[in-house]
Amino acid sequence: MAGSTFGNIFKITTWGESHGKGVGVVVDGCPAGLPLSEADIQVYLDRRKPGQSKFTTPRKEDDAVEILSGVFEGKTTGTPISLVVFNKNQQSRDYSEIASYYRPGHADYTFDAKYGFRDYRGGGRSSGRETIGRVAAGAIACKILDTLGIHILTYTRSIGPVAVDMSRFSKDEIKNNALAMPDKDAAEKAASYLETCISEQNSSGGVVECVITGMPAGIGDPVFEKLDANLAKAILSIGAVKGFEIGDGFDAATATGLSNNDAFCLDADGSVSKKTNHAGGVLGGMSDGSPVIFRAAIKPTPSIASTQQTVNKAGEEIQIQIKGRHDPIIVPRAVVVVESMAALMVTDLLLSNLGARMEYLEKIYNV
Amino acid sequence: MAGSTFGNIFKITTWGESHGKGVGVVVDGCPAGLPLSEADIQVYLDRRKPGQSKFTTPRKEDDAVEILSGVFEGKTTGTPISLVVFNKNQQSRDYSEIASYYRPGHADYTFDAKYGFRDYRGGGRSSGRETIGRVAAGAIACKILDTLGIHILTYTRSIGPVAVDMSRFSKDEIKNNALAMPDKDAAEKAASYLETCISEQNSSGGVVECVITGMPAGIGDPVFEKLDANLAKAILSIGAVKGFEIGDGFDAATATGLSNNDAFCLDADGSVSKKTNHAGGVLGGMSDGSPVIFRAAIKPTPSIASTQQTVNKAGEEIQIQIKGRHDPIIVPRAVVVVESMAALMVTDLLLSNLGARMEYLEKIYNV
Amino acid sequence: MAGSTFGNIFKITTWGESHGKGVGVVVDGCPAGLPLSEADIQVYLDRRKPGQSKFTTPRKEDDAVEILSGVFEGKTTGTPISLVVFNKNQQSRDYSEIASYYRPGHADYTFDAKYGFRDYRGGGRSSGRETIGRVAAGAIACKILDTLGIHILTYTRSIGPVAVDMSRFSKDEIKNNALAMPDKDAAEKAASYLETCISEQNSSGGVVECVITGMPAGIGDPVFEKLDANLAKAILSIGAVKGFEIGDGFDAATATGLSNNDAFCLDADGSVSKKTNHAGGVLGGMSDGSPVIFRAAIKPTPSIASTQQTVNKAGEEIQIQIKGRHDPIIVPRAVVVVESMAALMVTDLLLSNLGARMEYLEKIYNV
Amino acid sequence: MAGSTFGNIFKITTWGESHGKGVGVVVDGCPAGLPLSEADIQVYLDRRKPGQSKFTTPRKEDDAVEILSGVFEGKTTGTPISLVVFNKNQQSRDYSEIASYYRPGHADYTFDAKYGFRDYRGGGRSSGRETIGRVAAGAIACKILDTLGIHILTYTRSIGPVAVDMSRFSKDEIKNNALAMPDKDAAEKAASYLETCISEQNSSGGVVECVITGMPAGIGDPVFEKLDANLAKAILSIGAVKGFEIGDGFDAATATGLSNNDAFCLDADGSVSKKTNHAGGVLGGMSDGSPVIFRAAIKPTPSIASTQQTVNKAGEEIQIQIKGRHDPIIVPRAVVVVESMAALMVTDLLLSNLGARMEYLEKIYNV
Repeated sequence: MAGSTFGNIFKITTWGESHGKGVGVVVDGCPAGLPLSEADIQVYLDRRKPGQSKFTTPRKEDDAVEILSGVFEGKTTGTPISLVVFNKNQQSRDYSEIASYYRPGHADYTFDAKYGFRDYRGGGRSSGRETIGRVAAGAIACKILDTLGIHILTYTRSIGPVAVDMSRFSKDEIKNNALAMPDKDAAEKAASYLETCISEQNSSGGVVECVITGMPAGIGDPVFEKLDANLAKAILSIGAVKGFEIGDGFDAATATGLSNNDAFCLDADGSVSKKTNHAGGVLGGMSDGSPVIFRAAIKPTPSIASTQQTVNKAGEEIQIQIKGRHDPIIVPRAVVVVESMAALMVTDLLLSNLGARMEYLEKIYNV
Repeated sequence: MAGSTFGNIFKITTWGESHGKGVGVVVDGCPAGLPLSEADIQVYLDRRKPGQSKFTTPRKEDDAVEILSGVFEGKTTGTPISLVVFNKNQQSRDYSEIASYYRPGHADYTFDAKYGFRDYRGGGRSSGRETIGRVAAGAIACKILDTLGIHILTYTRSIGPVAVDMSRFSKDEIKNNALAMPDKDAAEKAASYLETCISEQNSSGGVVECVITGMPAGIGDPVFEKLDANLAKAILSIGAVKGFEIGDGFDAATATGLSNNDAFCLDADGSVSKKTNHAGGVLGGMSDGSPVIFRAAIKPTPSIASTQQTVNKAGEEIQIQIKGRHDPIIVPRAVVVVESMAALMVTDLLLSNLGARMEYLEKIYNV
Repeated sequence: MAGSTFGNIFKITTWGESHGKGVGVVVDGCPAGLPLSEADIQVYLDRRKPGQSKFTTPRKEDDAVEILSGVFEGKTTGTPISLVVFNKNQQSRDYSEIASYYRPGHADYTFDAKYGFRDYRGGGRSSGRETIGRVAAGAIACKILDTLGIHILTYTRSIGPVAVDMSRFSKDEIKNNALAMPDKDAAEKAASYLETCISEQNSSGGVVECVITGMPAGIGDPVFEKLDANLAKAILSIGAVKGFEIGDGFDAATATGLSNNDAFCLDADGSVSKKTNHAGGVLGGMSDGSPVIFRAAIKPTPSIASTQQTVNKAGEEIQIQIKGRHDPIIVPRAVVVVESMAALMVTDLLLSNLGARMEYLEKIYNV
Repeated sequence: MAGSTFGNIFKITTWGESHGKGVGVVVDGCPAGLPLSEADIQVYLDRRKPGQSKFTTPRKEDDAVEILSGVFEGKTTGTPISLVVFNKNQQSRDYSEIASYYRPGHADYTFDAKYGFRDYRGGGRSSGRETIGRVAAGAIACKILDTLGIHILTYTRSIGPVAVDMSRFSKDEIKNNALAMPDKDAAEKAASYLETCISEQNSSGGVVECVITGMPAGIGDPVFEKLDANLAKAILSIGAVKGFEIGDGFDAATATGLSNNDAFCLDADGSVSKKTNHAGGVLGGMSDGSPVIFRAAIKPTPSIASTQQTVNKAGEEIQIQIKGRHDPIIVPRAVVVVESMAALMVTDLLLSNLGARMEYLEKIYNV
């Protein structure tokens, strides 16, 4: 099965390897009439750029996006939008060593097992650069959502053992620190923790949290195409994500019905609301009008400088040390990737919901 | 978007409401030549049957499956297998009360928001009976996997605050207690905890764990169709699941690269293996040959006898007490549903992997 | 690939064999709020019923449809609609002969080639009864289209060498004769031709024509999902159809640009129209507001009483005579099947067009 | 619905407009291990190049393909293959006139109707250049088919009233004349006919025929995913195609069962074969081992120099003359597009057939 296409109606297809000619994405099914420029997309790509702090790889990736099709006179035309970022900074180093063995925690072995061989240069298709297409497409999805009054806020919830204290939550703070944390104190503690990791040739995992506000109720489907199920797939499809939870998530497993149920109430304007939001904005797979809240667990960067044991293709157990420029933590750069995948998923479900009622058909076709 | 179809090649479509004429599933894309009888399927359905202990609803559901098509002379023909379970035990009680308000933790409100109205009898399409189609189809998938040497073991990992002690893990014990726990002591403690919940008109959540052994390496795709991403969607598509994690999952977020990376090693027969399995059997979205291990967080049953606040359709805040026969815990009955969804997903990915290499095409078409 | 599902948003899955327990269809993605009863569907099924004239098989098939799910209080709920027709009149005759050889013009040989064996009773999955699910679902699609002011008229255009004289076209006449021809004279000549066929133990082919009026312009997509391309697949997916043409079709191949181009003009109300309709209502894959007109070529019934040569499974060339009750012409009964497939396709494309413009999203989500 | 993706397993996504930055295609799901170079693809693109005779537009399109991803060390890796052809020869002329009215026979009006506006430069997304992506991807499919012993021969069957005399069929002749006809005499008569068309500022339609040999039996599915139904959609998705027929096609509608049925017989090696091939190599939607034969009706080029009536966006009826460089016949250039679409479709169906039998799974997974 072709595995590089995501979405049913708002459908993206990504392509490209770390050290090939470039990476890109084709966005098919974007509604016509959305104002769109390269600058709209570039601002999202810049958020995932490395080299912005000591906690991200010092590699320089001046990734400039080009729109090759689908936009005319400043607006989307309804035809596929082809976006490309040409690879510029790929060093022509010697990859014969990395070609010969399987790095722990990487996909080297599984690529060989699936396809019989692999493009071993810089991680090939499993490189972090694969996310460029997701983010470029996600920027378009975010613009659609903004038009509809739906906004996504994403940030680092924890790094290693250091978690954000939600009573100190500050949206503005997210952009103020290198770790995308909404709590200045936590960011400082996390920075200190990461410096220890670096000094020990080690790396750290963390948790990203995402909050979607302005969602109309009823988005997502009741059975297999649940909103939360689709978000889970979208988020777990990002490399290094090992877990997903919506609302109270795993804490709900230790809760009771009395504590976990969200009582319905009426807002001042008479609309239905909920007193609490343990559910994370989803009931029975459909949005309930409350903010949609989910978290993603991200594993520590597998590329570490410490000596590790592995196996080579000649069938020998060997000791290796991975060279090169690697992030000691990928969480801060993953924030915009999580946001992009959420935006893509929600946009697709908003579009598919247009067919939910006869009255919608009648409204559009003027019956 | 139609949301009742699951899978791309091994594709199932479920239908039916709690209090309609029946529930069923059409399994399309099942390879021809698999021996199959109703008994093969019934044994899985019996595992989700209520009324087997005091911890499940005393409702009697003698769900007998019928094969309506797709099997001839004891074998699957390659054409769609239609399975049906007619509803027999649905009481014709008065639903006017439940029709008038939104139960907390249920999909009543979101159904109305999406479709404009709902079948309010017994939860309609969001009833637990919706899982009958999944389990019936899952039984077929399990039979295919068995043929290929792939086996799935699923059990309750924790109930409320009571978790299995994995050092006491006993596979046989899973069938010995009403809670499907592989640890007799934990099962006893959990039973005691649940009795307290019942006495307090309350309910409990829990965690289901699933282990898939015998998986060939290379199953799943590197980008959007990752094995773990697909499993996450499959499992979150089950009502009441609020979280999914693979391998160390959320614990990986607090780990370091040194502790989380699994070193590759060689088995006695020279094949590649891993010293540990923090990854849960998946690297870069593809199976690595180790057991695939994941967990699902399941929320407490929302139907509780205690008084709760909600809103009715007339726009009033009201106090309600939910009547009827409800499980104080759905985890033990969810075990076979989790197993079924995992089996369906893995079967679909095994089929799609058949196109991964030119040599497979050449082998089948005898070039 | 599972091949029994049709449609992307309005999605149907059919199942069942000629001599199994029944045949049916699950309609997923039907918008909520459509009034629907079994009687709405039965009237379409009755149009494909055999035994209504000497030109159709005297087999009695009292196919009564049952709605098993998806309709509540007389309206569709948005959840899957399961429809079933149980097989009642299947004779338990001896099929050992038919099991042993390959009937010319039938799928016996290709089923064996694909799946390794086949359900040989009455054609199994390739029986004409397979179309019951299509027609049952098509009835629902027709009801949606009616609501939107879109109407489909389908009739026999020719039988063997006898074609309708379009200058004598009478819509009312279609229901007056057993051959569904809109020209009484042609119907009489065709009847006479068919009696000759019957007396010679032979059968005849014919052409079905379909006209869709009230189509809004812009339905269908410009590249792979063209309206006419989708109609072609829908119609060729009906057994026995060997050709499809839209508008002037194959005649366009002998035409010139001057004669084939349709000039645009203005209607009295100022709306854009076309002076002619050689295009058949489709330009660049999208409907142009004119009636959509297409034709399907249907081959002669392959089951004939004359002696034929074939091969048996023992690897011998043999002479056979096919027994049983067979239509000397399937065209009149195929009319409603063609209409159903057209309705299903158009409904699906109307739904997918809802995402074509940002302004539609804004309209539905009240921005 | 996104309409620029074709195929389920071997899946292509095309993008690009006539006068944008380029056109391209992403091929996802190509099996790993296929030797592939840009030269393999360029040879197919060169077959659709204009300017090769007086019967094609004198526009120069030196379309050179670049592989941007998915190929490593000369072989496909199993990851998406991104192919691009940058637009080089697009003149920056004044399009304000063409922007203001609707050309007869073109998609100008329907694009406006669907999306609210259009990229009017050179036909935009509906330009013949849209087929570059199809042909580039088709070249890869052809290479896969060659490996499996499946070969596709495509040629012009007729131009206007001039048809090939099949008794004079010469495969070699196809490449000898500018019209891709396998009959030298017919090619000369057709050339003479086209010169008349040109002198009269007119254009001509024609028929393309395609023969696929070496097909294993059993490819395609029995119900909606029939081989011929899928081919019909693939071919009708090409702009300007107005009809499709398989085997005897529309002639079957005037035939009888006795003349149309193909008797089965045994070949010298004992394999099952057919004495005739009226069916065109497909029975019940599945290939029967005989050559698959189909034809496509192609309408006359709508862009003609003669004066035509139409409507402008200001709501006036006007007379126009279309300027620019246009093919008086597109049939010869369409030959390779038809071949490409057939190759893409057959490749996809060969891949999906890998899941048809349990024994195939067992063979690949070594059970």
